[in-house]
Amino acid sequence: MIAEIIAAGSEMLTPFRQDTNSLYLTERLNEMGVSVAFKTIVGDNLDHLTGAARIALGRADIVIFSGGLGPTEDDRTREAASAALGVGMTRSAEILAAMYKRFALRHMAVPLNNERQADVIDGAEVLENVNGSAPGQYIDTVVGGHRKIVILLPGPPKELKPLFDAQCRSRLAATLPERHIAKRMLRMALVPESQVDARTAPIYNLYSDVETTILAGAAEIQLHFQCAKPTMKEAQARVDELATAVEQEMGEAIYSFNGESLEEVVLLMLGLRHMTLAAAESCTGGLLAQRLTAVPGCSRYFLGGAVVYADSLKTSFADVPEEMLRTEGPVSEAVARALAVGIRRRTGASVGVGITGIAGPGGGAAGPDANKPIGLVYVGISFGDAAEETVVTELQINGDREKIRWWASQHTLELVRRSLMERG
Amino acid sequence: MIAEIIAAGSEMLTPFRQDTNSLYLTERLNEMGVSVAFKTIVGDNLDHLTGAARIALGRADIVIFSGGLGPTEDDRTREAASAALGVGMTRSAEILAAMYKRFALRHMAVPLNNERQADVIDGAEVLENVNGSAPGQYIDTVVGGHRKIVILLPGPPKELKPLFDAQCRSRLAATLPERHIAKRMLRMALVPESQVDARTAPIYNLYSDVETTILAGAAEIQLHFQCAKPTMKEAQARVDELATAVEQEMGEAIYSFNGESLEEVVLLMLGLRHMTLAAAESCTGGLLAQRLTAVPGCSRYFLGGAVVYADSLKTSFADVPEEMLRTEGPVSEAVARALAVGIRRRTGASVGVGITGIAGPGGGAAGPDANKPIGLVYVGISFGDAAEETVVTELQINGDREKIRWWASQHTLELVRRSLMERG
Repeated sequence: MIAEIIAAGSEMLTPFRQDTNSLYLTERLNEMGVSVAFKTIVGDNLDHLTGAARIALGRADIVIFSGGLGPTEDDRTREAASAALGVGMTRSAEILAAMYKRFALRHMAVPLNNERQADVIDGAEVLENVNGSAPGQYIDTVVGGHRKIVILLPGPPKELKPLFDAQCRSRLAATLPERHIAKRMLRMALVPESQVDARTAPIYNLYSDVETTILAGAAEIQLHFQCAKPTMKEAQARVDELATAVEQEMGEAIYSFNGESLEEVVLLMLGLRHMTLAAAESCTGGLLAQRLTAVPGCSRYFLGGAVVYADSLKTSFADVPEEMLRTEGPVSEAVARALAVGIRRRTGASVGVGITGIAGPGGGAAGPDANKPIGLVYVGISFGDAAEETVVTELQINGDREKIRWWASQHTLELVRRSLMERG
Repeated sequence: MIAEIIAAGSEMLTPFRQDTNSLYLTERLNEMGVSVAFKTIVGDNLDHLTGAARIALGRADIVIFSGGLGPTEDDRTREAASAALGVGMTRSAEILAAMYKRFALRHMAVPLNNERQADVIDGAEVLENVNGSAPGQYIDTVVGGHRKIVILLPGPPKELKPLFDAQCRSRLAATLPERHIAKRMLRMALVPESQVDARTAPIYNLYSDVETTILAGAAEIQLHFQCAKPTMKEAQARVDELATAVEQEMGEAIYSFNGESLEEVVLLMLGLRHMTLAAAESCTGGLLAQRLTAVPGCSRYFLGGAVVYADSLKTSFADVPEEMLRTEGPVSEAVARALAVGIRRRTGASVGVGITGIAGPGGGAAGPDANKPIGLVYVGISFGDAAEETVVTELQINGDREKIRWWASQHTLELVRRSLMERG
């Protein structure tokens, strides 16, 4: 069975807005064994929409429309679908009554246009929309000798998603063979995609019944596994078997075995060790702290720290000696070390992190930093006062300011994770 | 003239990847007076692609393909376009020679499949791709008595964008009436979209030759104006006239007159006043600092500050009395005030900001915060030691943790901007 998704709405043909509903619908359809072969985006134009609907009925078994069910003159999905199917529409007294009731409760008159939302394609089941005023419609019919399922859904994602889940999944599942889907996601930071693919392809290629997708993102690689079987037990077993084989190959490079973010993993590892973290950030300017504090419940393991963008703050908040800033320059191994040690002592955290670097687009300031390259970043991690308990890593990150800052924060989290593992 | 964009690639029919090239192409086409009426996303399947190409040739004047020009068996855009046009392909000796040369320089053999990248649709101009191996193709032809322009572009955005700009814009412009586009963007924070629309629609509706788009984003509204005229002077005059009228209506609610971000505007205003800013952040956890430090050159006006997530850090980095944390609770008017004053004094900044709140999903801690609601945020802004120079604003933000944190940072920036304006 193949599906086509038609997103209706002129705003999605501008440079400003994109259809995102189709990502959600694709995930759900794939889970049921249906692949999406076409996506069409079309404006609020009856001829264009009707044409697109006819084409979709000619090449797909399931056609899902999103959008164009509102009350305005622009909303033409109902008309287009009924024209393409060659059937009429009937205004539903039931929907009209509910509409009048809803407006009356708010002491408002029903605008005349709104009555169009009560038009139901002949043969359609009405899908109640508890999050909005436009009901969906579900048509299971035969066109040119072929069974076709046509679904009309409202455009706002907050209406479309619950409506699809509550009312379309079970209807579709009843017409499709039973399948159960197991999924796993493994994540790795700072490993090149080509290396991950070269090392894991010989493994995942042995599992032709598991769909493997490698996604390379911002300083990380995700391996998605998905398997469909008649029972969940079978599906889960295959996915877990493959994940285990890949884990054995990639070893400690894998930070996440079930999709958790790197921030979550670092916080979890700190929690298991009854440890706390604090950070003194210069070039990342709060990005590391912001990522850690985005995780609910982080406060027990992340104390906070300082954004020591100005040099005076490196001294006043993390006790970096002024003399060191002058002689070594703020972007230096010595300063990263002093920041890590200083913030750890000041906050009483078990682990102190210091980040200093040149994010660009301008280079280092005058003095010792003048000739240091953009993208040079030092990350210090301190576990204690003894010299060997503080380690500084030098990085050279290529890219623009945003990329340098993001990769610096990602490197730091990964370095903290690996340090915690090494210390056991 | 209407255009259709066909994005070829099975990965864009998964839940993981989205076509984004079309946003760029749409912007460029709109500038030339061409509207995009359809976007089609289709997998790497020759029948599906050929069908989509035929449909596009039937309903659009300009058909632009992105993707499917690579060397693998999956890359079928060339074949699909030639089949839909009903013309053949010829392997170009010139492209082949360049390919062999490029591989030879890297001491690599040319994989047999790669030769397919030298196939040129009969009648096409080859568009050199300096950023990748797949050249583009440009076909200006007649199909069924109608002039059709068909463009094949490589999928990677880093190849597609420069190739389109360097080689397609001038070719398209030569076939289209001359137009010059002027644009302006006004931005407002924390004003409801309905209010902006109600107040500005009577104004922009008078300018039927200027295209106005209102975009509501995360705690901000953008008003985009665009006007096309035979000369740039005329276009700019109309856009500026409308922008001025809207500025008069919306007044100080507008923070940006030419698209600058709120962070940039705040930093600019601080710079004009020779002032500096520092922040003590609790619930936003570094988000405010991160946004400010994302702006290049921020260091002269933003000193940094502290992420005082743990209560002990509120005391050690911003001198909030322990007694106050116990009696008032960390999420209180008094603590926001103390944070703002404390961080200003500690850093020597002209302006100190303190943010404390409950971002959820859990509620306030035990003690005085126990019954305070999720989304309660206090923002303190301090300009001096006199009591009236520090003002605290209480906010109640609805939403999840991410939204509460973002809106809190946005509110804070807007409050700083308005305070600076009031002080002149």
